[in-house]
Amino acid sequence: MTLPDPLLTGLRDALGSEHVLLDPSVLEAYRRDLSTLGHLAFNSGRWDLSGFRAPDAVVRPGTVAEVQAAVRLAREAEVPLVPWGAGSGVCGGSVAIRGGIALDLKRLDRIRTLVPESLYVEVEAGVNGQLFEDRMQRAGLTLGHFPSSITCSTVGGWVAARGAGQLSGRYGKIEDMVMALEVVLPDGRLVRTPLAPRAATGPDWNQVFVGSEGVLGVVTAVVFRLARLPARRAFASFTFPTLADAFAGIREGLQTGARPAAVRLYDPLDTLLVARSGDPAPASDEAREADDAAGSVGSIWPLSVYSPRRLLSTLGRALGDLGKQLEHVALANPELVNRYAETLPGVGCLLVTTFEGEPELVRAEEALFTRACLAAKGEANGPEPAERWWRNRLSVSFKQSGVYAQGGFVDTMEVATTWDRLEALHTAVRRAVAPHALIMAHFSHAYPEGCSIYFTFAALREDEPEATFGRYRRAWKAGLDAVLACGAAVSHHHGVGTLKGDALRESHGALHDVLRSVKEALDPGNLMNPGKLGLP
Amino acid sequence: MTLPDPLLTGLRDALGSEHVLLDPSVLEAYRRDLSTLGHLAFNSGRWDLSGFRAPDAVVRPGTVAEVQAAVRLAREAEVPLVPWGAGSGVCGGSVAIRGGIALDLKRLDRIRTLVPESLYVEVEAGVNGQLFEDRMQRAGLTLGHFPSSITCSTVGGWVAARGAGQLSGRYGKIEDMVMALEVVLPDGRLVRTPLAPRAATGPDWNQVFVGSEGVLGVVTAVVFRLARLPARRAFASFTFPTLADAFAGIREGLQTGARPAAVRLYDPLDTLLVARSGDPAPASDEAREADDAAGSVGSIWPLSVYSPRRLLSTLGRALGDLGKQLEHVALANPELVNRYAETLPGVGCLLVTTFEGEPELVRAEEALFTRACLAAKGEANGPEPAERWWRNRLSVSFKQSGVYAQGGFVDTMEVATTWDRLEALHTAVRRAVAPHALIMAHFSHAYPEGCSIYFTFAALREDEPEATFGRYRRAWKAGLDAVLACGAAVSHHHGVGTLKGDALRESHGALHDVLRSVKEALDPGNLMNPGKLGLP
Repeated sequence: MTLPDPLLTGLRDALGSEHVLLDPSVLEAYRRDLSTLGHLAFNSGRWDLSGFRAPDAVVRPGTVAEVQAAVRLAREAEVPLVPWGAGSGVCGGSVAIRGGIALDLKRLDRIRTLVPESLYVEVEAGVNGQLFEDRMQRAGLTLGHFPSSITCSTVGGWVAARGAGQLSGRYGKIEDMVMALEVVLPDGRLVRTPLAPRAATGPDWNQVFVGSEGVLGVVTAVVFRLARLPARRAFASFTFPTLADAFAGIREGLQTGARPAAVRLYDPLDTLLVARSGDPAPASDEAREADDAAGSVGSIWPLSVYSPRRLLSTLGRALGDLGKQLEHVALANPELVNRYAETLPGVGCLLVTTFEGEPELVRAEEALFTRACLAAKGEANGPEPAERWWRNRLSVSFKQSGVYAQGGFVDTMEVATTWDRLEALHTAVRRAVAPHALIMAHFSHAYPEGCSIYFTFAALREDEPEATFGRYRRAWKAGLDAVLACGAAVSHHHGVGTLKGDALRESHGALHDVLRSVKEALDPGNLMNPGKLGLP
Repeated sequence: MTLPDPLLTGLRDALGSEHVLLDPSVLEAYRRDLSTLGHLAFNSGRWDLSGFRAPDAVVRPGTVAEVQAAVRLAREAEVPLVPWGAGSGVCGGSVAIRGGIALDLKRLDRIRTLVPESLYVEVEAGVNGQLFEDRMQRAGLTLGHFPSSITCSTVGGWVAARGAGQLSGRYGKIEDMVMALEVVLPDGRLVRTPLAPRAATGPDWNQVFVGSEGVLGVVTAVVFRLARLPARRAFASFTFPTLADAFAGIREGLQTGARPAAVRLYDPLDTLLVARSGDPAPASDEAREADDAAGSVGSIWPLSVYSPRRLLSTLGRALGDLGKQLEHVALANPELVNRYAETLPGVGCLLVTTFEGEPELVRAEEALFTRACLAAKGEANGPEPAERWWRNRLSVSFKQSGVYAQGGFVDTMEVATTWDRLEALHTAVRRAVAPHALIMAHFSHAYPEGCSIYFTFAALREDEPEATFGRYRRAWKAGLDAVLACGAAVSHHHGVGTLKGDALRESHGALHDVLRSVKEALDPGNLMNPGKLGLP
């Protein structure tokens, strides 16, 4: 699409020509996010199979007024506009699938106000996550939000995606941290939600824009509630005979009031790998070489102790020269490995936890949680496994590129449900995906009422890209159908984007019409990030 | 308004004639809620000055399908429909100010499902609050929501109003407790929000319907997250030299991680009254007689140790026969008493707190909070003042009827803001209202980021009702204007109704247009509880 001249002229006048970019090599960088769909398209050159395409322009506003101008100009010209933070989403949510303008918000990079007395900060949407957290920590504070993507995401993206970080058990998900928002609506008007700790003044509009994935407006600034940096951090780990025992221990611990900052439960296969693999950090020379060869720029994937990559490299190392062939065989025959995983005898499940805060609270919570785990047939394993997880939590040990180098692909599916339905969900998704891909799971982001499951699945790429995409789509469809059948949430923190739109429509039923009605009311022209969240 | 015959016939067919009520004496009971506006109108007979009127019919659906039928029939006939729980709101939110149908939901009274393993329950909207909590406690559980109106409110009303209870410090406000909702939309369709502990599936629609005060649909069922009944409860109290010191102590305690279930801070005048008045429970014989004489059926007003009534009766008792004249004089000359309150030397401020939960957590939190208070020049006063508050927390000691018997009126204004703006808000509202009414305040519902202020104000009624309403309206306008000037939330937990609609529009600015757009999308005919939340 060539954008109309009046639009381009208007944008140049409002933002400056240097911030209205049409160079194809620039546009190319906005063709995809960090989704597997994007990786597959990039690797095969078959963008048509992903639905992804480059925007027709990248526009970089430097102020809120410029954001408003860009939104109004695009609307007048009837051109789609897609907010873009750092492009590290994994569901295609920030890709301009209908073309138009990618609105890169990274120039809105000011931390406007910090009020330590009231533990809140107002920060513009384009601020880099790690830089923001560093600034807070220099003031003795923390947001407490540590997604794997923290170094390559923006706070606006966090809010748009309704994301979670590793220490959500103590600090909450992003929706718990948002006190107020500043948003440019699809018609260009600026709104601010009120700034109060709590209120009874009608609907909470923060919770409408959080998770709206850019379809209801452009978030330009966020007021976050902060926390003090913790005085103490403690680690504890436990082994349970079965997953059900582990669920019981975690549930009891949380329901009696302990709030571990992180809870990470490995199923028996993962536990086996962790036991055999030693300390995954630092990465082995071999792994480093593979990374360098693949030109990896890092990954947003979580710690690999529960990943197919780890499985494969562990198996590989254990079997020496036959390793690489075995990895290939495993990827080619996922059902064998999956079935093996379900029959592991006597391994048990490893649970690692961390607590942080004031010393007497940490002591009390750890004691409470430990008691709950021991009562659920858990055996205390001391702090070392948890400390090991902590040391490696940011190490980029799951290398997508490695799997791709093996001729495979990998993706994750993170879902959530209540405790009474958790085991059934775990089994249903594993069994549904197993014919299509190697699948592993761990459990984290636990709540008194339920828990999230993080599935990782991998398979070989076929010679024909259509076949690869076909396998990929079938694996997702099978997994999401199982999630829907279990009545669980189709995403816990990654979001919906383009990837899960159908599943969202199906799971929400008539409620999706409410989203559609609100969308039509705020964006009658359907120009603001169209085609996402299962919308037309 | 006489409702059209087809509508009445349709309702009778769908619900049964016995549940379609037109008897004027029945309709009269739905003319008002428990707002002061309603009391003033009732006492004077001047309903025209309140904007309140009786509905044209009361309709009592017994099932969700019947709710849908009633909503559709009213919509077809273009007749307003107003959801009604127990009518204990204080802002006029459930009054049918445009006539039409009052939809009494109390026949939707089933507790549908209780899942203790996952700490959640699904309950229909018409269930009485106290009965619901009793049922939960019999199962060893609690919702943890204890508004003063618990005995005369419904769970649907709690949700519609975005309310808070006395132990919100530990259990949260109602919006924290809602996991999922079942709502009949203004067009009669049924929607359910998904049931998961947390999700990233677009906007959180729960937070749109919570606090919507019946204007976006009829809540028919709620899934609440529950808590275990606490194993232990502890009490502690402190005295601070000034309010600022008390704020610092509370803030430090909360920001370091303690979560007292309740925090109640009395300003110097209130503290003086508490010290002089002894144990307000049980109610004195004199007070009981006054209640009986006034035909009081109880009150939703909070504990009176910080109320004008208490002030007046304390002063009265202290001065014997001159008491009643003095009370009258105080009410007639609020500025004198208000100015006196600001100059009280050396009294200090009393803070009472309670902690509950597992013993080691209670111990840790109490220690943490105590340390914070002592560091802020607080002096520990032991548990007794807090225990006294606890014993009297439900005693209906603030008797509106008593004030009315004295020829006065009384109302409350509860607002919230961040710590850095709290003292300014307190001062601004006191000074703004002082020329119009005797005003007192206490602080409760404290957060790491800020706090709520609960103002109580009272004045004499004039001989002419217009003058009384005029004084009442001026007191409210002055108070709300001060709240707006301070950028604070115009309500923390009572809601908006008809009383604060103008202030809501002004404080929300363009954001109020978002509410209006959503309202128009879901209810184009503006029939669902019209005229509330500052809407047309």
